[in-house]
Amino acid sequence: MVEDGGEPGGPAASGGPTAIRDDLAAVRREFHRYPEPAWCEFVTTARVVDYAERIGVDELHYGPDVTDAENRLSVPSEAELERWFRKATDRGARPDVLDRIRGGYTGAVAVLERGEGPTVALRVDTDALHVAESDDPNHRPAAEGFRSENEGMMHACGHDGHATIGLGVLEAVKHGDFSGTFKLLFQPAEEVAGGAKAMATGGHLDDVDHLLAVHLGLDRPTGTVVAGVVKTLAVCRFRVEFSGASAHAAKNPETGNNAIQAAVSAASDLFAVPRHGGGSTRVNVGHIEGGAPAHTNVVAERAAFEAEVRGEDTELMEYMFGECSTVIRTAAERHGCEATITVEGEAPREDSDPETAGAVEAAARAHPEVSETIPSADFGASEDATYLMKAVKENGGNAAYSVVGTDHPGGHHSSTFDVDERSLGIAVDVLSDAVVRLGTNNDA
Amino acid sequence: MVEDGGEPGGPAASGGPTAIRDDLAAVRREFHRYPEPAWCEFVTTARVVDYAERIGVDELHYGPDVTDAENRLSVPSEAELERWFRKATDRGARPDVLDRIRGGYTGAVAVLERGEGPTVALRVDTDALHVAESDDPNHRPAAEGFRSENEGMMHACGHDGHATIGLGVLEAVKHGDFSGTFKLLFQPAEEVAGGAKAMATGGHLDDVDHLLAVHLGLDRPTGTVVAGVVKTLAVCRFRVEFSGASAHAAKNPETGNNAIQAAVSAASDLFAVPRHGGGSTRVNVGHIEGGAPAHTNVVAERAAFEAEVRGEDTELMEYMFGECSTVIRTAAERHGCEATITVEGEAPREDSDPETAGAVEAAARAHPEVSETIPSADFGASEDATYLMKAVKENGGNAAYSVVGTDHPGGHHSSTFDVDERSLGIAVDVLSDAVVRLGTNNDA
Amino acid sequence: MVEDGGEPGGPAASGGPTAIRDDLAAVRREFHRYPEPAWCEFVTTARVVDYAERIGVDELHYGPDVTDAENRLSVPSEAELERWFRKATDRGARPDVLDRIRGGYTGAVAVLERGEGPTVALRVDTDALHVAESDDPNHRPAAEGFRSENEGMMHACGHDGHATIGLGVLEAVKHGDFSGTFKLLFQPAEEVAGGAKAMATGGHLDDVDHLLAVHLGLDRPTGTVVAGVVKTLAVCRFRVEFSGASAHAAKNPETGNNAIQAAVSAASDLFAVPRHGGGSTRVNVGHIEGGAPAHTNVVAERAAFEAEVRGEDTELMEYMFGECSTVIRTAAERHGCEATITVEGEAPREDSDPETAGAVEAAARAHPEVSETIPSADFGASEDATYLMKAVKENGGNAAYSVVGTDHPGGHHSSTFDVDERSLGIAVDVLSDAVVRLGTNNDA
Amino acid sequence: MVEDGGEPGGPAASGGPTAIRDDLAAVRREFHRYPEPAWCEFVTTARVVDYAERIGVDELHYGPDVTDAENRLSVPSEAELERWFRKATDRGARPDVLDRIRGGYTGAVAVLERGEGPTVALRVDTDALHVAESDDPNHRPAAEGFRSENEGMMHACGHDGHATIGLGVLEAVKHGDFSGTFKLLFQPAEEVAGGAKAMATGGHLDDVDHLLAVHLGLDRPTGTVVAGVVKTLAVCRFRVEFSGASAHAAKNPETGNNAIQAAVSAASDLFAVPRHGGGSTRVNVGHIEGGAPAHTNVVAERAAFEAEVRGEDTELMEYMFGECSTVIRTAAERHGCEATITVEGEAPREDSDPETAGAVEAAARAHPEVSETIPSADFGASEDATYLMKAVKENGGNAAYSVVGTDHPGGHHSSTFDVDERSLGIAVDVLSDAVVRLGTNNDA
Repeated sequence: MVEDGGEPGGPAASGGPTAIRDDLAAVRREFHRYPEPAWCEFVTTARVVDYAERIGVDELHYGPDVTDAENRLSVPSEAELERWFRKATDRGARPDVLDRIRGGYTGAVAVLERGEGPTVALRVDTDALHVAESDDPNHRPAAEGFRSENEGMMHACGHDGHATIGLGVLEAVKHGDFSGTFKLLFQPAEEVAGGAKAMATGGHLDDVDHLLAVHLGLDRPTGTVVAGVVKTLAVCRFRVEFSGASAHAAKNPETGNNAIQAAVSAASDLFAVPRHGGGSTRVNVGHIEGGAPAHTNVVAERAAFEAEVRGEDTELMEYMFGECSTVIRTAAERHGCEATITVEGEAPREDSDPETAGAVEAAARAHPEVSETIPSADFGASEDATYLMKAVKENGGNAAYSVVGTDHPGGHHSSTFDVDERSLGIAVDVLSDAVVRLGTNNDA
Repeated sequence: MVEDGGEPGGPAASGGPTAIRDDLAAVRREFHRYPEPAWCEFVTTARVVDYAERIGVDELHYGPDVTDAENRLSVPSEAELERWFRKATDRGARPDVLDRIRGGYTGAVAVLERGEGPTVALRVDTDALHVAESDDPNHRPAAEGFRSENEGMMHACGHDGHATIGLGVLEAVKHGDFSGTFKLLFQPAEEVAGGAKAMATGGHLDDVDHLLAVHLGLDRPTGTVVAGVVKTLAVCRFRVEFSGASAHAAKNPETGNNAIQAAVSAASDLFAVPRHGGGSTRVNVGHIEGGAPAHTNVVAERAAFEAEVRGEDTELMEYMFGECSTVIRTAAERHGCEATITVEGEAPREDSDPETAGAVEAAARAHPEVSETIPSADFGASEDATYLMKAVKENGGNAAYSVVGTDHPGGHHSSTFDVDERSLGIAVDVLSDAVVRLGTNNDA
Repeated sequence: MVEDGGEPGGPAASGGPTAIRDDLAAVRREFHRYPEPAWCEFVTTARVVDYAERIGVDELHYGPDVTDAENRLSVPSEAELERWFRKATDRGARPDVLDRIRGGYTGAVAVLERGEGPTVALRVDTDALHVAESDDPNHRPAAEGFRSENEGMMHACGHDGHATIGLGVLEAVKHGDFSGTFKLLFQPAEEVAGGAKAMATGGHLDDVDHLLAVHLGLDRPTGTVVAGVVKTLAVCRFRVEFSGASAHAAKNPETGNNAIQAAVSAASDLFAVPRHGGGSTRVNVGHIEGGAPAHTNVVAERAAFEAEVRGEDTELMEYMFGECSTVIRTAAERHGCEATITVEGEAPREDSDPETAGAVEAAARAHPEVSETIPSADFGASEDATYLMKAVKENGGNAAYSVVGTDHPGGHHSSTFDVDERSLGIAVDVLSDAVVRLGTNNDA
Repeated sequence: MVEDGGEPGGPAASGGPTAIRDDLAAVRREFHRYPEPAWCEFVTTARVVDYAERIGVDELHYGPDVTDAENRLSVPSEAELERWFRKATDRGARPDVLDRIRGGYTGAVAVLERGEGPTVALRVDTDALHVAESDDPNHRPAAEGFRSENEGMMHACGHDGHATIGLGVLEAVKHGDFSGTFKLLFQPAEEVAGGAKAMATGGHLDDVDHLLAVHLGLDRPTGTVVAGVVKTLAVCRFRVEFSGASAHAAKNPETGNNAIQAAVSAASDLFAVPRHGGGSTRVNVGHIEGGAPAHTNVVAERAAFEAEVRGEDTELMEYMFGECSTVIRTAAERHGCEATITVEGEAPREDSDPETAGAVEAAARAHPEVSETIPSADFGASEDATYLMKAVKENGGNAAYSVVGTDHPGGHHSSTFDVDERSLGIAVDVLSDAVVRLGTNNDA
């Protein structure tokens, strides 16, 4: 663990080609115990950098050159960033790494140069959720002592496993029969759809021929692999601030510009944006707050909400965002308020390419522990990995987003979510095999 | 100050019949420095008890027998009560008083038995506001060192002055030419319209023949006295909780019962309750919050708002409350949610009686520093003193609510509110003279 | 009757100073049988012109010089005007009069020059309502054979009586002891608040020193007179047209600009315009229609509604109109529609002046059949006579609006409304006496 | 034409096996000149009965035994039915037929018994639309003299052609090589989705093995045939009446139960019914009206709207209908109104069966004028033929809904819609060939 003072320790410390592969559960549990929110993955980033150095890579990027700072979405306040930074320092994370990632420059890119051949990349994500982890003895992390040590935060979507899988694949590719360049991308801020846009424009995707991304679970049992998902929903998450003018609600309500009235009117009307003949759309307001507690006699001068729109494709999502913008603008005008809309997360729709997914399919079919291989399946939700997929495709490459099934007792994002750790090995094997095949394929 | 360890100290310590009258500004500043919210007036109550004991009274009530516990509205959470209680303990307030008022049993009643005659009562209020006091050097409390020591709380409506005036009148009546029974009521929780109902049913009003209440300022300058206000607005403040069922906003929004949608729909529609042909009404939603920050992908299972309705008379207020209840109930039903409405504050409409107000008018006209005496004026806002006035009237007594003008640089409830301390003496003189006249009158 | 071919006929034909006074019921029933809507009072105008000529006046105006054409509000379509014009022709109304009032130039002004003295005017109104008159035998017009002959139209607000009273007063002033100039104004289009503005700017009010206006009933019984009402509500009636773009509601709803959605959103929100601290306001949407019957699969390209706002004073009404305009404009913008607002009727607030009302009060007190004389009372509704009152006041004159009580079995605007014809004589006597007093007063 | 007095006339009069086939354009133009609305197809029904008799059939049903009276949706008022009935009488339609179909019992079923074999049915529809037909000389019906003679009604969706095709197929099957039973269904009231439900339960579908339905055009050019459409949208059209209580909008608005406020609130909220994760949904309010013109001072006691919901499948449509019902019920409750919902039209989702569609596909491929044969295509809209398809399937049969392309200058339901009459012959040939194949197939 990091708090051991930087001493070589933990599963990887034993070295050798199969060090991580043999101890995937331990690595994952280490990540699980220390969940961090988007752009605050300080301990997590320091730890993956540490592992990557031990595995030995040709390039290792972390800090401001991993992401395009301007495109980072949903970055927390300076105070919140510092709070997590200090926690990381207190926990004893490597100061040299911490210095470079301070201020929300989390994430890392590790590169293996393995001779002639295509550039193949694997993206894993690293952030956790604001969920309080169950302490029920039936919840294995509670029973076996690796429950979250950051109360109120939890790896409830398997990113602890994803980071672990990434390290396992890095190790396997390093020691395996791969010709080409391999890049491992540790992406921050996936849960808020805030990290991929910045990584997509950060430069590391420009030369990628094949991009792989992976997710555990998603209601698929251990032993199942979906080679390439399609029909992700494009998504845009945004925050709206209404500012008006306060007034005494009894003496002269007419002099106020009621920010709560503007906000509730807009929030109501967002749900009434017309359906689109071109395909499915979604809209939701997930958080609202305005005015001040107990101040019922004040016409509120401030209110805000957070909402999201989705579409079966990017254009449909953009239609929804455009309509919502009109709703918000006119509701604000109605009540003499100003409204500002800030995009907090975004992801286009991208489908897996058959070529790249084919390598995962072949690898899965060849794996003895994979009982069901599904070439393609609808995703039905959103993932900002699509930003990376889109960037690769625009540069002439291909991409696939794969699902490695895992038996999970609680649903994703629930307080009893957990993964079947057998799936970690399957994922490492299948993905590293796919990387090799993609290298080999292009050479052929 | 209380923290002096219970030693005789502060202005009253000098003893003698005019001790407080000579030091009103100092007493007021002491209260000003330590503002406390509704039902948490622990230091304030302990201090008025202390003063009353020094003045010497025939009865002194504090603790649970001051108010009817069931009718206390807007009592904060147990945790909040305890937080302020511990602060009071830390400040060194008298432990014997604190013990009895713990748990939100603030307020006090002091009684002087002065022979045959009617029972005359004066009500003053004691709580402060959640306003951050200005530290501008032009703000006298900041310049002269008696600015709030409880950051974020402020005596921004003059209740520090009211409590001081009450003590001044108690002292004056004790030593003055009054025949009858005099009761001084220190009411908690006026700002939230939460204390008067409980005091009205607490028993101390039952035998009152004349009730006086007083407010400083209200845009009247020093030297002006309004003997009896009329046309208060009846008010009801309430909190609404919506509970529904969460769902994934993209995968199966139709399975959720959207508490935010219910809340914003209801909040919008509250403003559309039809006007009433019988007179003026008001409605406002002053605070709203629902869902969870950043959880735009969750159909919210919980939302809440706080609102208030008012009416030119009590029936109009009740019409508004009834209509709002229907709006809330049907909006909840529409979205499959439960809605619970909790009344947090309430005050009926009551007008001053000419008989009681007449005594104040006569006293004001007789005072050399009063330049303008106004027999009656419209109030235009709400005050829960009307609960006390109504209780007295129902028992056959009369009541008047008076305004003693004071030059105030900032508006009521603003961060730069202050009072002209000259008005404290005027108020003490006029009100104690009125008390005497009410006693004498009845004897005549 | 008019249809008798212009022959001297009807009650007034008998000539002599008291011809109309003796036959008020008959004159009123003649008007009652032929109700006409606003700006279509062709037969009615021809009839009052005919009566005025028989009485003998010094000036008689009808046609375009009675009203200011630009300020006529709520003028019906050309087709509707022509339909009623042809009906009037068919009924045999005087062609010379009809020719001049064709196209909605109804109304008349009769002038008596009676020597030195002030100019005193009396305004009566003439239009009827779109109400189907009861044929119940308990309804006297049905039982006694003077029920409306224009099915669907009815004198359900007593304007038949008002026109009759005007003629009676004209006759009485002609033969009475009045010194000055007397003007009798027959105003069109009161029910839609559409006629007074045009008459106020038409020139005939410019030299008026005292303006009287009169209404029968208003829930006051026969024998009661209110000399001068105060607290009329200012009113503005308007029509809103929304035009958008149609689309197939299933195939491509997103391409439409939904005029129904814009209209219902605006109509909902009109009711939510905040109350005003300065006094009472009102708002109502009384008619809405949009889209096409059975075309549920079409996104509607057109919708419209009619609404009104009122205020305790003119400024409050204008506040409401301004807020409603903002609601309408932003709702249209929200849905990509155009909205046009057309004012259809308007009346400011004006109160009766004590001086003018005093003459009515004195006359009422002197009348043996008046059992109750009320100097002043609140009106609580709107009347466009206030436009005329305002014009007179702005020229330095005074005005009063009087109510002459009448027992009326059904409410105003109901299908069983009727007047107690005894009140017609009371009204003629009291008002002509008041006219004389106003002349005499100024002479004194 | 019918008005020729019942004389044998029109194209079919020449008799012989190919009489109608040779004159399809003339038959279609005859229907085109006399469009009738849903359930008022009196002349049209009389005419198809007449034609069927001339062709010679084994059974011919018209009048009450064609449809299940209780399940007829959107039947017009008695007055409207009678108005169209009198027009039909005036036009000289056969009195014996008219007598039986009076009261909205339009539609007909013709049966050919052609020996052993399956029962094959063809459904065509017969009603027209409330669209004013273009009189532009570029619009062929206008140029060539067969424009609608019923102003404001128009065959703007090709049902004139459908009825013609039905007669052509009847003739062809009679004289062709078909073994089995053939039923030709002339369905009323398709445009309002009102006729199929009643026909589905009317008994004539119970023994059908293969049901064919046909539509011209739908943006497919002449020469194209879609053998079987899939993915129709389930639809429900409904009318909502709100009844409340009127009140004077200024004097006592609070005593009213505002039906317009209830209606506009509900209409707004219908659009805000949450999207469904299970597939596409639609909602629209296509018509609204409430209150009375010019009565802005009346709180309206009545308002109504017509709306429709659709779903990608029947369950989704039913979800929408359930949610809308809740919206309507709660909006009515909010405003103290009653709301009644009447279903005016309904159609489930049904897809074409490959077996039945296969016969159409084979026939199309064999036709020299068919340049493109599409086995299956998405429909994207609604059709109440699905009620018939569902009924047949529930009885163990199969069904297909085919599209025969036609060049149409204006869009469906537009005033310049027209069909390329060459497509009529293609449709008759392909469908009669398919009928034969379905007969033969089963024999094989």
